[in-house]
Amino acid sequence: MNNANAHAFTLEEIARRVGARLVGDGSRRVSGLATLNDAGPEDITFLANRAYLKFLPDTSAAAVLLHPNHADDCPTACLTMDNPYVGYAKLSALFDPLAARDVPGVHPTAVVAESASLGRDVQIGPQAVIEDGVRLGDRVIVGPGSVVGCDTEIGEGSRLHANVTVCHGVVIGRRAILHSGCVIGGDGFGFAHDGGRWHKIAQLGGVILGDDVEVGSCSSIDRGALGDTIIGNDVKIDSQVQIAHNVQIGDHCALAGCVGIAGSTKVGRNCMLGGGVGLSGHLTLCDGVQVTGMSLVTNSIHQPGVYSSGTGAMSNAQWRKNAVRFKQLDDIAKRLTRLEKEQRSR
Amino acid sequence: MNNANAHAFTLEEIARRVGARLVGDGSRRVSGLATLNDAGPEDITFLANRAYLKFLPDTSAAAVLLHPNHADDCPTACLTMDNPYVGYAKLSALFDPLAARDVPGVHPTAVVAESASLGRDVQIGPQAVIEDGVRLGDRVIVGPGSVVGCDTEIGEGSRLHANVTVCHGVVIGRRAILHSGCVIGGDGFGFAHDGGRWHKIAQLGGVILGDDVEVGSCSSIDRGALGDTIIGNDVKIDSQVQIAHNVQIGDHCALAGCVGIAGSTKVGRNCMLGGGVGLSGHLTLCDGVQVTGMSLVTNSIHQPGVYSSGTGAMSNAQWRKNAVRFKQLDDIAKRLTRLEKEQRSR
Amino acid sequence: MNNANAHAFTLEEIARRVGARLVGDGSRRVSGLATLNDAGPEDITFLANRAYLKFLPDTSAAAVLLHPNHADDCPTACLTMDNPYVGYAKLSALFDPLAARDVPGVHPTAVVAESASLGRDVQIGPQAVIEDGVRLGDRVIVGPGSVVGCDTEIGEGSRLHANVTVCHGVVIGRRAILHSGCVIGGDGFGFAHDGGRWHKIAQLGGVILGDDVEVGSCSSIDRGALGDTIIGNDVKIDSQVQIAHNVQIGDHCALAGCVGIAGSTKVGRNCMLGGGVGLSGHLTLCDGVQVTGMSLVTNSIHQPGVYSSGTGAMSNAQWRKNAVRFKQLDDIAKRLTRLEKEQRSR
Repeated sequence: MNNANAHAFTLEEIARRVGARLVGDGSRRVSGLATLNDAGPEDITFLANRAYLKFLPDTSAAAVLLHPNHADDCPTACLTMDNPYVGYAKLSALFDPLAARDVPGVHPTAVVAESASLGRDVQIGPQAVIEDGVRLGDRVIVGPGSVVGCDTEIGEGSRLHANVTVCHGVVIGRRAILHSGCVIGGDGFGFAHDGGRWHKIAQLGGVILGDDVEVGSCSSIDRGALGDTIIGNDVKIDSQVQIAHNVQIGDHCALAGCVGIAGSTKVGRNCMLGGGVGLSGHLTLCDGVQVTGMSLVTNSIHQPGVYSSGTGAMSNAQWRKNAVRFKQLDDIAKRLTRLEKEQRSR
Repeated sequence: MNNANAHAFTLEEIARRVGARLVGDGSRRVSGLATLNDAGPEDITFLANRAYLKFLPDTSAAAVLLHPNHADDCPTACLTMDNPYVGYAKLSALFDPLAARDVPGVHPTAVVAESASLGRDVQIGPQAVIEDGVRLGDRVIVGPGSVVGCDTEIGEGSRLHANVTVCHGVVIGRRAILHSGCVIGGDGFGFAHDGGRWHKIAQLGGVILGDDVEVGSCSSIDRGALGDTIIGNDVKIDSQVQIAHNVQIGDHCALAGCVGIAGSTKVGRNCMLGGGVGLSGHLTLCDGVQVTGMSLVTNSIHQPGVYSSGTGAMSNAQWRKNAVRFKQLDDIAKRLTRLEKEQRSR
Repeated sequence: MNNANAHAFTLEEIARRVGARLVGDGSRRVSGLATLNDAGPEDITFLANRAYLKFLPDTSAAAVLLHPNHADDCPTACLTMDNPYVGYAKLSALFDPLAARDVPGVHPTAVVAESASLGRDVQIGPQAVIEDGVRLGDRVIVGPGSVVGCDTEIGEGSRLHANVTVCHGVVIGRRAILHSGCVIGGDGFGFAHDGGRWHKIAQLGGVILGDDVEVGSCSSIDRGALGDTIIGNDVKIDSQVQIAHNVQIGDHCALAGCVGIAGSTKVGRNCMLGGGVGLSGHLTLCDGVQVTGMSLVTNSIHQPGVYSSGTGAMSNAQWRKNAVRFKQLDDIAKRLTRLEKEQRSR
């Protein structure tokens, strides 16, 4: 994809917008953002990771956003900031072509219930459906084919991409970003055993998303059984994540792709779950817990820190031998203890 | 979400509807269902788990549904049943606001093929698509944006929530509930290697879902290669589950979130698969097998019981040391055996 | 599902179309394709796996496609080919009912931007949305409810099933097959930490899919942060797969269901990832790597071969004992080494 767009900025304007100090010709214009290696003379780039420092001398970029310590090594104009990675984040927003395309208004093919209330400058895409009693804050964007169920409330500045489903009775805060294919407020998984059959438990709770929540493509957050499923402020959820009913996630957590969290588990603030991590139900994780990729957590965690499970990958031939021994592990441990006793008793 | 709805019920009516014995004032009205802790004087609650017994004396609920053994400890009106969890399930259905909103009819923006046959009181939401030859039983509900492919048959009383996709030639039984984003009948994953390239195998089979099947948000059940993928009666499937082509699942199974089942595997009746469980292809699991969360099953299971794999989570520091040793496990076992022999030979 | 369709073929025609040698009556007609066991006298079947050889003598099929070595054992007409599994793939395409149903044209409820360019014989289903600047090649099919975002390009002969989402600025090659619920080009997961909060990094890259790529139901391929996420030619991706930003997948790879690949990882050509496999970010896998189901790969792999991690499933009782010992494994290894030293020092 060509990142260039109609918009071009002077370096001076960029420095002002991202809050950086400019060293060089402020009137030079750039029209794209690229990596140190890929940037051409119309692009701005950034250096946020020392591993890429070696590429700095040879960059063809018009300007580089970097830490003041590296300004002297920069062969071209530079914008300095103490946290150049945050600077990159701000730069990226400037060059995002999506924002420029937004045009408020309701597409004629959208179906909007009369009882729905729309804030100012709301944008509803083609084939979208807004059901009864929905309230959309100012500047909310609902993408093509997305459905917002009865009585749901979405805070100002939130964006639903295409084919998003938000079920009935969900509350979404401000500036949420919901990616295509995600489902907020589907039923939690609740059944009572009744003479060999399952009896469905209607899921009467809702889902509450705080402000600044992002939910990735094809992720699902189930509604609560009685109380609500609650996602705190500034929680970032990647693609293909499953969050079960009545889960609570504290502010500023980040959940990588394919994470699954079972019912009623509470995750503290500032936690980070690696890709494919599974949390069993009814657990509590304290603030500041990190779990590495594909680990399974079956007990509550009361100390901040990094947690892991599983085994690393190895060749299948090596693995087969070791995996067989895993099944004998308790026996191995007991035999070892016996040997030690015999040794000591001599 | 506020669970209260326009509907209020007298305790007498509730007792009759859920089949409980009422102790107290049957004319008292309740308008909501909540937990022992959260219930207010307009609510009914329930006690189904001894762990919550401690909250019973202090509940503010108008009434409590519970086991007769606990009736004496109840500070307010009570409804007694031998299985209060089933009672809760029945209560929950009474207070489900969704049912009250259903209004039969075909929305003017829905596209329904002339050759489709619709039963009585069918409801087709806005932007839905019903293709050629589809047959919908009485009271079937197709939510907004959902698509039902050619020649598919859906039994009476089934509900497709918003943005569901049922592909062509699928057969769905009665009272199914399909949640948003799920896909029934996408192609199975079949290719023949042909001189370094993949040659697609058209997936000519279908999917058959029995009666009373529920499929969670964003789950997928692939169509068979030649024969069908078959899901039995009363099978409950959570969100983000993947069921590959020609899998067969017996009656009354429950599959938690993120389960993945590879092609042609047969799961018996009354099995329960924990979250994230993976079953390899071409296996057979007998009736009554339970597999705990995130376990991988690579061999058939012929005995009912509980099965597991993997390792529990620990601190990353501890895990790193142990995971390294896992790679040496076969060597460790051999060294131990050697030591034992030496010991014995003295 | 009944595989039979209006089309019937003579054996002679079939032999010609799949490139097989016919032994028997070429004028006989068959109208369906089924397994050796299920095929009736109107069906053709195939034998591609020796395990099914025992069913050959008793098949009721009108004809069997098989290896020349087995022709003598065939009780009916046969079509011989050196690779009968590829023959089956070709047969399956003949009997695919979908192709017969395709009728070019734009459904009146579809919303197609004026600036979009459509090739010859394009088919756009009901409720689909084609945004500004989209270019669709000849014979592209966009299923009901699918959305194609601004400036996206889709090569000739590609098919999007129902409710597919392709976001803006994506490039898809020829003959792609995208299954329902999949999302191509949702945002990658990128945030900069900024004083305890997450600052979104706009995902300015795109996604490039080569020719002959297939993506399963509910799978997601995220767009790149700056450069593109790149999927090679003839890459086959199953259902519920997550591919993060800036991943690169080489030609002819096959990824089974529920695979998750973290950001910037490069997978070589002809790799096969089993169901539920996880690859950490920023890795490189060389050509010809196979990873078995549910393995986690956290380091680059530089040798072709088969790799695995995890433990096999066992009874939960047995597992509990062994899993506890896993946490003691480093200690066990050290104790063993100490014992060995003591032994040797005697």
